[in-house]
Amino acid sequence: MLSPTQIETTYHRIKNYLHKTPILESSFFNKKYGHRIFFKYEGFQKIGAFKFRGAINALLSYQERHQKLPEKVVAFSSGNHAQAVSLACQMLGVQARIYIPKFSSKTKIIATKSYGAEVILSESRTDAENAVKQDSQNGYYLIHPFDDNDVLLGQGTSCYEALLELQENNITPDAIFATCGGGGWLSGSYLAKELLSPISKIFGTEPRDADDAYRSLQAGHIISLDTPSMTIADGARSTSVGQFTFEYLKKLDGLYTVSEQDIIYHTQWLNHILKVRVEPTSAVTMGGVVQYIQGLSDNKQQNILVLLSGGNIDTPTEKIIWEQDYLTALV
Amino acid sequence: MLSPTQIETTYHRIKNYLHKTPILESSFFNKKYGHRIFFKYEGFQKIGAFKFRGAINALLSYQERHQKLPEKVVAFSSGNHAQAVSLACQMLGVQARIYIPKFSSKTKIIATKSYGAEVILSESRTDAENAVKQDSQNGYYLIHPFDDNDVLLGQGTSCYEALLELQENNITPDAIFATCGGGGWLSGSYLAKELLSPISKIFGTEPRDADDAYRSLQAGHIISLDTPSMTIADGARSTSVGQFTFEYLKKLDGLYTVSEQDIIYHTQWLNHILKVRVEPTSAVTMGGVVQYIQGLSDNKQQNILVLLSGGNIDTPTEKIIWEQDYLTALV
Repeated sequence: MLSPTQIETTYHRIKNYLHKTPILESSFFNKKYGHRIFFKYEGFQKIGAFKFRGAINALLSYQERHQKLPEKVVAFSSGNHAQAVSLACQMLGVQARIYIPKFSSKTKIIATKSYGAEVILSESRTDAENAVKQDSQNGYYLIHPFDDNDVLLGQGTSCYEALLELQENNITPDAIFATCGGGGWLSGSYLAKELLSPISKIFGTEPRDADDAYRSLQAGHIISLDTPSMTIADGARSTSVGQFTFEYLKKLDGLYTVSEQDIIYHTQWLNHILKVRVEPTSAVTMGGVVQYIQGLSDNKQQNILVLLSGGNIDTPTEKIIWEQDYLTALV
Repeated sequence: MLSPTQIETTYHRIKNYLHKTPILESSFFNKKYGHRIFFKYEGFQKIGAFKFRGAINALLSYQERHQKLPEKVVAFSSGNHAQAVSLACQMLGVQARIYIPKFSSKTKIIATKSYGAEVILSESRTDAENAVKQDSQNGYYLIHPFDDNDVLLGQGTSCYEALLELQENNITPDAIFATCGGGGWLSGSYLAKELLSPISKIFGTEPRDADDAYRSLQAGHIISLDTPSMTIADGARSTSVGQFTFEYLKKLDGLYTVSEQDIIYHTQWLNHILKVRVEPTSAVTMGGVVQYIQGLSDNKQQNILVLLSGGNIDTPTEKIIWEQDYLTALV
């Protein structure tokens, strides 16, 4: 495992390439849940999600190690990581090739192309993974979406930034929440909180329909889903956590699974109240927060830091989100 | 007509009650349209829309004139003005009664109640208007949604704030855009730009399905729609502009009407790119911006200030917005 101090080094390496993202707070949610909830909103990060942090760190770290940037980069992703690698490469003048399964969101494909990468549509996820492997043996530098030390360190800078800002306001979170896809964000966030706020607990949240991390933690070894889940939280559809990230996930104080209905409920409310675009992957966290609060043994007001992954939602997904009205349900 | 300097007085009266709202800029939109576009985003204002500015100013101005606050307030609205009056009254400890037609958005009714006002659901818009008149003759102080000097001055502080911020960055807008409902926002914005940037042009935008302001300007006198339009831009459904506001609307450099399809197209794109919640009423502006740009005689890059009214969208409206996919259409 990496040393928590590496998060600080990482932050100083990449911070000039980042947008500083805000912490949002809502008196409505504080009252509704009886605790202070701080939302670190990564939708305002470049490409609209935290994934940019990992991609830019992968490139700059490579440059530090080799005194030059990689000549060409390859990645595989159906979502935010694709856009992140594409933009990070464009910014540093590196050639990028991204494999995207052809059933992926058209909007994300368009966005990935718009940042300049060569996009290759694959027949399937397996095809894409194989092609990436081959390219990486032929001169392409692979940036893995989560199971990569540089990437997870980059992702952790979001939690680091949030904890620094809370610290300046003398606030120590009792609990931190982030959604688990491949586990990169939680791994980096774990390191960040070990560095700045080891007393804080940290929890993962996962769609119940894609509960490979939950099952893996129960079993004590990595379990892969046979087929990718079609959970609406598309950033958490990975079939398995990583070899590296699993070691950090074992350190979590807990991992909550959340139903599809609850994910949609929280997506509607976060969008409605915070007035920013919150993707379903982000909203999974609130399903965990509710379970966490229900399990508290006293009513003492806590400070809860919720990491919201981003704001990229395509139209077909919006259509599903707003099908039923959860905003007029009893609050 | 009021003196433009009154906008400054108004701003100093109410600023401590307001959230300072941000100006957002997107390199994507700048590139797409070939001009710099600055979005003043009122979704982050209290109650999620600029309407709070007018409501709080109405109360504080009354207090200045009478050395006391009104005892009780009445208002009529099916939307953001209802929430604005309810919250402003709650903050100042004034009793509020709001008439809302019963076919109005449930979400907005719930929000209005949550700020503490007595909410009375009326059978129809006419019923509500009559009840308000009666109450205003029985000790209730009426806060009109737009045809009121205090209200329109309050609304104008949004443009004032934006122009101040642009000025600090040495930016003079060539053109300013805002959507026309009853005309209060445009009236106040006209005063603000006369004070800070008289060289800037100012344009109104209006749903083609609720084009009473456009027709009134063509005719030279106020024309009312027989029935309220059901345009998706619910903040622009008023059947007629006001006696006061019409005088300011005559001063505009133009007024563009926008089709329902274009409103939805721009709502999708503004939400997608800006990562904030942009209500359809706000998106009407972009339909005007596109027409304005098409009509320019040269390609010189302009600075365009777009006032976005707010971010309150209920679930049935979201469902309509995301029915068709405009994000994958050619950009």
